[in-house]
Amino acid sequence: MLGIGAFSPLEGFVVKKDYESVLKDMRLSNGVVWPIPVILSVSYSIANKLAVGDNILLSSPYDDEIVGQLNIEEIYIREVEKESKVVFGTNDCNHPGVAKLLNSDNKYCLGGKVKVFSEGRYPKEFPQYARPDEVRKIFKEKGWSNIIAFQTRNPIHRSHEYLTKIALEISDGLLIHPVVGELKPGDIPAEVRIKCYEVLIEKYYPKDRVVFKVYPMEMRYAGPKEAVLHAIIRQNFGCSHIIIGRDHAGIGNYYGPFDAQDIFDQYNEKDLKIKPIKMDWTFWCLKCGQLASKKTCPHPDKDHVLISGTKLREMLSKGVKPSETITRPEVAEILINYYQETLNKNNFN
Amino acid sequence: MLGIGAFSPLEGFVVKKDYESVLKDMRLSNGVVWPIPVILSVSYSIANKLAVGDNILLSSPYDDEIVGQLNIEEIYIREVEKESKVVFGTNDCNHPGVAKLLNSDNKYCLGGKVKVFSEGRYPKEFPQYARPDEVRKIFKEKGWSNIIAFQTRNPIHRSHEYLTKIALEISDGLLIHPVVGELKPGDIPAEVRIKCYEVLIEKYYPKDRVVFKVYPMEMRYAGPKEAVLHAIIRQNFGCSHIIIGRDHAGIGNYYGPFDAQDIFDQYNEKDLKIKPIKMDWTFWCLKCGQLASKKTCPHPDKDHVLISGTKLREMLSKGVKPSETITRPEVAEILINYYQETLNKNNFN
Repeated sequence: MLGIGAFSPLEGFVVKKDYESVLKDMRLSNGVVWPIPVILSVSYSIANKLAVGDNILLSSPYDDEIVGQLNIEEIYIREVEKESKVVFGTNDCNHPGVAKLLNSDNKYCLGGKVKVFSEGRYPKEFPQYARPDEVRKIFKEKGWSNIIAFQTRNPIHRSHEYLTKIALEISDGLLIHPVVGELKPGDIPAEVRIKCYEVLIEKYYPKDRVVFKVYPMEMRYAGPKEAVLHAIIRQNFGCSHIIIGRDHAGIGNYYGPFDAQDIFDQYNEKDLKIKPIKMDWTFWCLKCGQLASKKTCPHPDKDHVLISGTKLREMLSKGVKPSETITRPEVAEILINYYQETLNKNNFN
Repeated sequence: MLGIGAFSPLEGFVVKKDYESVLKDMRLSNGVVWPIPVILSVSYSIANKLAVGDNILLSSPYDDEIVGQLNIEEIYIREVEKESKVVFGTNDCNHPGVAKLLNSDNKYCLGGKVKVFSEGRYPKEFPQYARPDEVRKIFKEKGWSNIIAFQTRNPIHRSHEYLTKIALEISDGLLIHPVVGELKPGDIPAEVRIKCYEVLIEKYYPKDRVVFKVYPMEMRYAGPKEAVLHAIIRQNFGCSHIIIGRDHAGIGNYYGPFDAQDIFDQYNEKDLKIKPIKMDWTFWCLKCGQLASKKTCPHPDKDHVLISGTKLREMLSKGVKPSETITRPEVAEILINYYQETLNKNNFN
């Protein structure tokens, strides 16, 4: 993310004054809005061997490829509990982001600029992978200026398709931009989701008005703070707007349903060029006879075809196709096959 | 419209330098964007009896009520052919606005400030009538700032309901704002349309998120120029956005389908605070299984449930209910009754 300019204006891992400023004010020390510190953290035993001024090589955790070099400008101690409270709003280790942070031995941060040699496994693994400059070039060639980004870590069901269709109605074009970095256990793997996105775009979207690309980042499930990070990233990818749905980047009940929307209200045009498109939970309404949300539909819950993620997974893993008002049949088929294969694999192992 | 501040910043009928400036630059002589001159035109025989400095009383054409007073600042000759060409883009008398202009004997304009005594027949006839200050107050009380206006001169069928629902998904609230002034022959009368709007809002809209008010203006069918006027009016009513659909305020084939959208591209924030939400023709797509437009749907025309206004009128006047994908049954019923009654009345006459 640093190497491709997706974290612009960051040129490396933040130094102490930026780390502290981000935790205190949600801004870098120079005033630029930044919600979550981007750090390289190491254990005491590693930090102990390093000194300011050292140039160290950075390798990929996947295949040990050397991907970059860090010039260490500063070594400082991370305030993990404060960081957890600020970034995730909680110190509860049931939250996967908190657990990862608080259970880590990596309490030392190496701040400094980074030189990038390679984009690692992503360009090789994902033909849909693209850097911000590549995506901006596509938008420029298409003559688009009003471009809405859709962030996702899930397959696109009807309710999310509806959000993207609204975006398409009011914009020059749509960037479907799923994260393909590390997810939490239980989330659908990137390669399966990509199949779902592709068949959906092929069958139900005007192809010349949609750009489908993937980007490498680890999901933090930091709700409002991560929503702002998602927005900054999409600004770097050339988008003018980003869809922020209910409980964006949330998990469990750690965030209020509209926290990730309200957080944008404090910013003006100078703080963030990209703007959120705030949308509510959406569903098929039997009385309306169409997709809707609480913002557009006056009918009671009993008229709404709503299904929990858990229930949907249960159906799909049993090979039951959900109603077309919930999931397009082509997407359901891919997911049923995926669950079937996972099940078979688990049975054989 | 002048008296209630809907034409703000105009305080009266334009004087010659403003008339000329509007025709030349689409701006008043002080630089304010204004697309169609607001004039009081009279015949030679009337103009001949008047002089600069005269205070004349203005009466309603409907019931002769004295509604205001004009202090004549200037009497000047109207350039009807130039005006027609600029405002309507044509001198073709098949265009109802052009016909009215070119066939009129009123070639003299009385410019000057107007004092308003009464809002005429509108507050009495329409309980839904509201001045801009009243509507702005409603928005303020609701705490809305992102408000989208929907201008209409027709009953709201599914395709237009879809536009308003998109507006509701992305805003604090929606102003359904039909014109109830003079229309062309064949358009549905205001009182019938109001019944349609009310039943639709009652059954299919979240009532706390919709404001339904009517405003008095004569439709000009001036396409792009009228779209800009519609926007300025809604800015005065406190809206931040206005829906501009395909061929907005158009008639026949006088304007390109997106002329009324493109015309806004020349303006920046200083010119117009209100922004257009540009949308395409919309329809029910059988393959998508939902409402859509060319911006969101990749399927060929044969999958789209589209019906011309003429065909729809024909169905309704024969008492045939169109599909629910075209018109809500409650709206269809009102229109069928209206056509039935009109038919009976005509048969009796």
